[in-house]
Order: sequence, then structure tokens, then C-alpha cells
Amino acid sequence: MLLDVFDALSSTADLGVVPQENSTFGSVIETYDNLRKPDARFVRGEMTLQVQHCLVVRQGVRLDDVKKILSHEQALGQCQRFITTHFPFASVVKTTSTAAAAQALFRHPPDCAAICSKICAMIFDGLSILQEGIQDDTANFTRFFVIARNKDSAIPDCPTPTRALIQISAKVPSVSTVTGTCTANISKLLTALQTTITRIDRRPAVGTIPFHDVYLVELEREVQDDSKSWDQEAELAVDRVRQSGGNATLVGMW
Amino acid sequence: MLLDVFDALSSTADLGVVPQENSTFGSVIETYDNLRKPDARFVRGEMTLQVQHCLVVRQGVRLDDVKKILSHEQALGQCQRFITTHFPFASVVKTTSTAAAAQALFRHPPDCAAICSKICAMIFDGLSILQEGIQDDTANFTRFFVIARNKDSAIPDCPTPTRALIQISAKVPSVSTVTGTCTANISKLLTALQTTITRIDRRPAVGTIPFHDVYLVELEREVQDDSKSWDQEAELAVDRVRQSGGNATLVGMW
Repeated sequence: MLLDVFDALSSTADLGVVPQENSTFGSVIETYDNLRKPDARFVRGEMTLQVQHCLVVRQGVRLDDVKKILSHEQALGQCQRFITTHFPFASVVKTTSTAAAAQALFRHPPDCAAICSKICAMIFDGLSILQEGIQDDTANFTRFFVIARNKDSAIPDCPTPTRALIQISAKVPSVSTVTGTCTANISKLLTALQTTITRIDRRPAVGTIPFHDVYLVELEREVQDDSKSWDQEAELAVDRVRQSGGNATLVGMW
Repeated sequence: MLLDVFDALSSTADLGVVPQENSTFGSVIETYDNLRKPDARFVRGEMTLQVQHCLVVRQGVRLDDVKKILSHEQALGQCQRFITTHFPFASVVKTTSTAAAAQALFRHPPDCAAICSKICAMIFDGLSILQEGIQDDTANFTRFFVIARNKDSAIPDCPTPTRALIQISAKVPSVSTVTGTCTANISKLLTALQTTITRIDRRPAVGTIPFHDVYLVELEREVQDDSKSWDQEAELAVDRVRQSGGNATLVGMW
């Protein structure tokens, strides 16, 4: 489970790998919800993998028997067309991961199928694959973040960083007297970064005025400035956002 | 079901109301996935409602009987803490809407509960409310978009528009020779808007290079320029993005 990876970084693990985004279904909100926290873990790397989903059942179960499909919401989203075409009347159950879906088959009646990777079907004895490559888009990629406990946890033999992730929010949003909800002007804060932006994700800030947002902004070093390191450039970008009246924290550098 | 609202605008309905974002759980991706399409419907208004979720069962079912919880993923997300605290072992089933969850109770065994509004429990005969106000955050608001068939569908007695929604994407993303996925610099396109940005949402573009994004950017008219109408200002912002090398389309004005 994704949250367990973040939790393990507080105790046993030095590094963790969490899905950040899928090319068909978009951002993984649990990851962004962990990165929006004030004491967020630190992104130290990325990797991209091509993802092939399989329809997996307990041995002996046939396609016609399947009445219920279990998987993580990302995999369910990536196989939406397959599900509606082949199982328009099946009930769909969300699990905490695709591996958890495969495991759950042993606790459920045999009319259940899991959507998971081929490797899951091989790890757990007694499962068989009914169909491979069931994702809606054959070019289905998931990009992962490598996360560390904090900024000072180094990864050995890492290439010189060229990317950064910054948490940004407006300090003083404008609050409606009617609903008590707010809006904020984010343009000035993004302009203050003065750096190439390659991704912007928006999540609700926790425990503040309704509709107050945290933006997670990914930056890329396109032009190398020899007078400064990328670390220094990213810290300067954070400072400029603060000087423009916003909150900003560096939550990744890789 | 949300998709039905968009579909109805092609035939029977003149206007539709779809959830855009919840203050606890964030953006409603189905809505953004419909607004990212090349022939998207047009946003003509907004409204914000306070949302109270209830735990609803078939009459006679008690809290201890509940083994399965049905609801839309937004409501499940908004009541996540309630579910993990009170029903750590229940299976959670995603439905197409909260009303669909209430209705489904009649087709499921009696050990099921739905998370839905009070009004759902009253509309369908034979249901009863086990608990009210089960959302994690008491200040739980959902903001809705009023959508019309196209830009020319007017809403009678509408106030002068002050907001706009623009679809933006990079025309020429940079493609990795290793994975075949892409990244794009979005900074220049956002700066070209030269208008107050109040929300930015990112979704994967459909049927293009993996990780090519469409941004849905909400603008607000903060300073009134008497020489131009807001329509003209928004169209000029769209033109500036195009001149900066991006794709841009106006998909809302209210």
C-alpha cells in the first residue's frame, strides 16, 4: 500500500518508490497528498515503466464466471474500456494496490477477478491469467518517484540533478462572505519561479479554508548557469515565491 | 452518472450541472476528462454547495451488519477516515454516483451500506439512515459547473461574466529517445495568458505521446478594463498562448 511506503521512511527504510503518474489515467493523488504535507518526504529520483495489466482469477475460474473485479483505482481507470466492454454488469471493488487485489482473490468467492501485473499472478500460488494486456492504451506508462526520508538522504552514484519539486500556496486567499470558501491568484507565484515548469498538480490544502490549494510544481533545469548549482537555483526560486507573498518549500531535487 | 449529463447535452438537455471539485478530496477527474476533449461542452456558470454524507442501509439493517460499503469515489474519499475507523474490514465498492449506490442497495445482500445524501435515503422507499454527517471534514463543500452545449448557448438572467476556463497544451513537447514519453515546458504558455489564474488542473491528453498533458486553467477578471469586454480579454489570452507556440481553446465563460 502506497501509504506504507511513506510510513516506512519514518522508521525502517531509507528509500521508497511510489507511483507518481500514469500516462492514461493521470496523477496518483495519494502520492501528491503525501507530498503536500508540511513535513513531506523528499523526492530524490524518478523512473518510468511500461505497464501491462492482466485479468487474473483463481485457477479453474472461467471468463464467464466473473461477476466482480478487484483492483487499485489507477488500474481500474487504465482498464476502464475493457471492463465496460467485457463486464458491463460486474461490480468493481477498489483495493489498496494491485497486489492486494490478487491476494484478496483467496478470501473472495471464486466469481472474482483481479487486475494486476503478470508477476503478481506468478508470486501467489493458485492463480491463473485469463487475459494479458487489458489496459485501454497499449502505450501505458507509469512514472515513479524515488523518495527519501528528507533532503539530506543522499542516493549513491546519482547523476547531477536537473529537476526539482516545489510546494506552493498563496498566503492570503480571498474568502467569500457568502460560502466561507476561498480563491487565490496563483499567477504571480508561478511567474516568480522564473524556471521551466514541466508539471503542475493541484490538491486541497489540509485543515484550512475550503478550496485553499497547494500546488506541486515540477521544474526542469533547461539552461545550465555555471555560476550557480541547480540546488542554489531551486532555492532562489523558492525565495522569490516567498518574496511574492506565497508559501514555498522544496520537496524534491533529482 | 456524470457522463450521462455530458451526453444529454448532445440531445435532450440545454444545460447540465456537474461536480467540478470537492474541498476535501479535490478535482473531479471525470469532469476534467470531458472538458479536455477537442469538442468539449462549454462552462456557463458555477455553484457551491455544502455536502453532508449519510450512511444509508435497507430498513432493519444495523451498523454491526455492514460488511460492504458502496458509493462514488468522491464520497468514499471524503469519508475515508470514517470508513477506516468504523469499518476497517469492509469491502468498498465504487459506483457511478452516490444515488446509484443508494439504488444498488436493493440489488445487494442486506449487509451493504451506501454513502449518499439524506435526500437519496428519502427518495428511495425502504431505506434508512444509520448515521449523518460522516464526511471527514465538517466544512465539506462541492463546487459545481453549469455546462451548456456550446459557447452560444446562453443562460437567461446571467450576471456579467468574470471567469473563464481555457484548455492549454504544448504543441511540440520534447520526446525521450529512451522511453518514447514526453515532457513540455508550460511556463511560457501560462505567462502568455497575462491574466489572474485561480485554478490549474492537469490531465493526460488523449491519444498522443505518453505524458503529453492538457491543462485546464481557470481565469478571473480582477481588474476591469472598460475598453474591452471579458469575452474579448479571454479571446486575446487564447491568442497570446497560440502565438507563444501552444494550443489553446476557450471552454468556459461565466
